[in-house]
Amino acid sequence: MNRRAPSGAAVLQPAITAAITDAVLAELLERGYARLSMDGVAKRAGAGKSALYRRWRTKQEMVLAVLAKISVPLADPADTGSLRGDLRASVAAVATWLTEPPFSRIIPDLVAEATRAPELAAAIANTVGEPRRALARTNLERAIARGELPADTDLEMAQDLMAALVYWRMVVRQAPVEPDYLDRVTDTILRALGATLT
Amino acid sequence: MNRRAPSGAAVLQPAITAAITDAVLAELLERGYARLSMDGVAKRAGAGKSALYRRWRTKQEMVLAVLAKISVPLADPADTGSLRGDLRASVAAVATWLTEPPFSRIIPDLVAEATRAPELAAAIANTVGEPRRALARTNLERAIARGELPADTDLEMAQDLMAALVYWRMVVRQAPVEPDYLDRVTDTILRALGATLT
Repeated sequence: MNRRAPSGAAVLQPAITAAITDAVLAELLERGYARLSMDGVAKRAGAGKSALYRRWRTKQEMVLAVLAKISVPLADPADTGSLRGDLRASVAAVATWLTEPPFSRIIPDLVAEATRAPELAAAIANTVGEPRRALARTNLERAIARGELPADTDLEMAQDLMAALVYWRMVVRQAPVEPDYLDRVTDTILRALGATLT
Repeated sequence: MNRRAPSGAAVLQPAITAAITDAVLAELLERGYARLSMDGVAKRAGAGKSALYRRWRTKQEMVLAVLAKISVPLADPADTGSLRGDLRASVAAVATWLTEPPFSRIIPDLVAEATRAPELAAAIANTVGEPRRALARTNLERAIARGELPADTDLEMAQDLMAALVYWRMVVRQAPVEPDYLDRVTDTILRALGATLT
């Protein structure tokens, strides 16, 4: 009986992956995407550079894998039984994601970088944006099934609405928000979608 | 008769102001706000640093004055006689402003910088955001006067809607837009505001 550890692909130790993940987030916060380096992340994580390259081939792949692993599960929608309840929960989750550290700084920085690098924009969409949207879409599909939204609802516009107002007011403008702001955003989206509330 | 040039405040030559303006925009595009310097702008403009400091006391004041001078007039709203027409024109103007160079790169870069510097965020709001919003608000007030919008319309949310969807789809996501995208954004906003179209 062969009792050796698996050969070929090296076994990736979860503790090292976790240390690298923390280091990537800290470097993104402090230095931004453009100045983040594999060297800097390895040093901060107390790991060798080979530990990074065993996991990801490039800096872009590493950063996006780390961001996706945290950001995508945050889009898992609540099932409250009503469109209003689901939307209110989704908008609140988006607001938390976009406005609290570390993402409140990391995302605007990545957006600025992506305006200079279309392939980075495409990679962000593929690894973070689309998986988040696929998860969140179930909210809207449940509402269509319940008859709360028209069957021909523009799902892409609906999903834009769930993030766009919060991003513009709270991230771009950094403007004050009323205590009932998230409720008002929810009502605005419901009207925009022509929802029939049950 | 005294024929000397005016004394006291120096006369600011428009040609030099124009050269400095071009240099500020070019440096913002190439280097971004953080790495832009008074030295770099002066060199690119072929002017002395004193020419800059006669006009503005700080880098922040200079950059925001240049951006406001171009951005604020772009928000001057069309008066097409209908809310739909006015909104469609405003949304198209916002899309042009946010998605074409130089602002398509400059604005995301400034947003990222402002997340690290609240006083920069406040200065952007005071010099660019609020003057733009004051101009654009006349659209909405005309529609209220015509009975197309409720008298208690949330003007701040309405103004957020005019930029938020375009910014999220076209700048943050850099996602494809349908040929009739701006029409669909206009319809979405009209529904969100509970407009009664005349």
